Amino acid sequence: MSELWSPLVSRLTPYVPGEQPKIADLIKLNTNESPYGPSPRAIAAIREATGDDLRLYPDPEATALRDAIARRVGLTAAHVFVGNGSDEVLAHAFQAFFDHGDPVLFADVTYSFYPVYCGLYGLPFELIPLDEAMRVRVEDYTRPCSGVIVANPNAPTGIALPLSAIETLLAAHPSRVVLVDEAYVDFGAESAVSLISRYPNLLVVQTLSKSRALAGLRVGFALGDPALIEALVRVKDSFNSYPLDRLAQVGAQAAIEDENWFSESVARVMATREQLSGGLRELGFEVLPSSANFVYARHPDRDAAHLAAALRERAIIVRHLKGPRTAPWLRVTVGADEQCATLLDSLRGILLSNS
Amino acid sequence: MSELWSPLVSRLTPYVPGEQPKIADLIKLNTNESPYGPSPRAIAAIREATGDDLRLYPDPEATALRDAIARRVGLTAAHVFVGNGSDEVLAHAFQAFFDHGDPVLFADVTYSFYPVYCGLYGLPFELIPLDEAMRVRVEDYTRPCSGVIVANPNAPTGIALPLSAIETLLAAHPSRVVLVDEAYVDFGAESAVSLISRYPNLLVVQTLSKSRALAGLRVGFALGDPALIEALVRVKDSFNSYPLDRLAQVGAQAAIEDENWFSESVARVMATREQLSGGLRELGFEVLPSSANFVYARHPDRDAAHLAAALRERAIIVRHLKGPRTAPWLRVTVGADEQCATLLDSLRGILLSNS
Repeated sequence: MSELWSPLVSRLTPYVPGEQPKIADLIKLNTNESPYGPSPRAIAAIREATGDDLRLYPDPEATALRDAIARRVGLTAAHVFVGNGSDEVLAHAFQAFFDHGDPVLFADVTYSFYPVYCGLYGLPFELIPLDEAMRVRVEDYTRPCSGVIVANPNAPTGIALPLSAIETLLAAHPSRVVLVDEAYVDFGAESAVSLISRYPNLLVVQTLSKSRALAGLRVGFALGDPALIEALVRVKDSFNSYPLDRLAQVGAQAAIEDENWFSESVARVMATREQLSGGLRELGFEVLPSSANFVYARHPDRDAAHLAAALRERAIIVRHLKGPRTAPWLRVTVGADEQCATLLDSLRGILLSNS
Repeated sequence: MSELWSPLVSRLTPYVPGEQPKIADLIKLNTNESPYGPSPRAIAAIREATGDDLRLYPDPEATALRDAIARRVGLTAAHVFVGNGSDEVLAHAFQAFFDHGDPVLFADVTYSFYPVYCGLYGLPFELIPLDEAMRVRVEDYTRPCSGVIVANPNAPTGIALPLSAIETLLAAHPSRVVLVDEAYVDFGAESAVSLISRYPNLLVVQTLSKSRALAGLRVGFALGDPALIEALVRVKDSFNSYPLDRLAQVGAQAAIEDENWFSESVARVMATREQLSGGLRELGFEVLPSSANFVYARHPDRDAAHLAAALRERAIIVRHLKGPRTAPWLRVTVGADEQCATLLDSLRGILLSNS
């Protein structure tokens, strides 16, 4: 640290993203990327926009993209906010909604960026333990708070909440924003978007990084009552007028509009997920029921960190998170069929050689 | 406003960027974009990277881009921070460095995003008036402060400070960061990068939006002592791990490496600027000496707002900023030669018809 820093800087505990190794021929199952490329329409739209017009600023309001998202979900552009990945959207939302003196509530095992945002904006928070089955119990979220954030499906567990549980949260906190982080919702969970017209305190955040296979383009969005969107716009326009470049705007719009590619790609991932879950269970793993593009699994008598290290020696990367409740588990991204088959073969070899 | 908002949100006064009209055939001289397209090498690099790899996250550290910038300026990657446009870089810098209880110091006439950042992070600030000739007087920046930010050349005036003046600021505040915003430096001002090795309190911010003609790609960067870069990384990694998408990283790198395109393009803009300044003076305007890709001009007996409106009727947009000291002035981006000729013809017509 340095005397030149604002005092905040040395107090921060930054988020550590999953490794992005620069090694070829790895089977990379650690950051929940899609095994398939994005919509060819997205690629074509980006190529077409790559020219001298890059000298011009993008549309600061990303109107065409917001219109496309609104059309797809049956809302209006006034219900849509877009940002540089859902991480940026979440950051703005923490600052815009969660500063009311009481703690922000979220699960003890969930996306580990949430406490980091609280650190960045000086927001107290309270961790609500998942139950023994690693499930969110919404009845535990009734205490006074500055807001609630719940990932649905949750990460790293992959377990989804029913909409009735989301409604319980919304009804319990009518004067606080309930943020539903739906990064993985398209892989089998139920979106809370249908509740927006009835709950002005509901903010839904989604991303194009997972089900749209555009992690490399950095586009996320929030859906909610126009008063919530206005707050996000006010924060964004006090931070960076143009967070989405011209290529991200056109690529994201084309991806959102390619319904066929989307449904086929998601169906493929979900089919592979069921094969992967079955294969892991055959090897003796406990596998949580996943509604995401990853599975969360533990072996009753093998150390997860050792398994992850042994896989890495075989050029396969999965995610192992430290911490008392996550240490026994491995989070494995659903890759292509052949990648998952290789993973299962490798695990079989590791389990046999160490037994 | 809404009870759901954090109290901060209703206190914000967001920045208002220059208009990005969706009308064809406008002569757009209002947001200081380059009249020429970016380096063809940047376009080629983006096209090559537009494919299935967009399913993968970008390098969160943007290592190749930071290496390229470091090579160009004769520093190391540890001296380089990159972000989603220089606006994002500036936002992080305000949060990372300017919270020490005293006000942040900047000019009364300068980039109007600076007070907005102060609002976003709750930082007091003090406006230091430009002198009668619209020049920064560094002797006025000696009071206790949390930091100093100076645009060099200044916007909207275009007037540059010599390096000796920057050194005066740095020496006056050894325990505070002096941020030199060099968005327009390549058009004729002297960069403070050469001072970085001697002043650990110096942070230089540049952008690819102006002299690299990539406003549509959103890439900016900061250069400074590694301890300052570390602070920016800590803030960034508490906000958004991947602010620069894959295409922005490769496009920016190729642009930085294309020295020939860069020097030719900048020379063309500077030559046109001198013609434009001369033409405006012939029409009776006072024109400040510009080291940027825009000129700041006022007419002794014509209302600037009326002139801007009359130009707009002729499909030419320039920037007019309200406020006691800026109201008499027009900021005119240096466009292509024929655009500037049309502007001068139109102004001649307006002046004649109203006289």
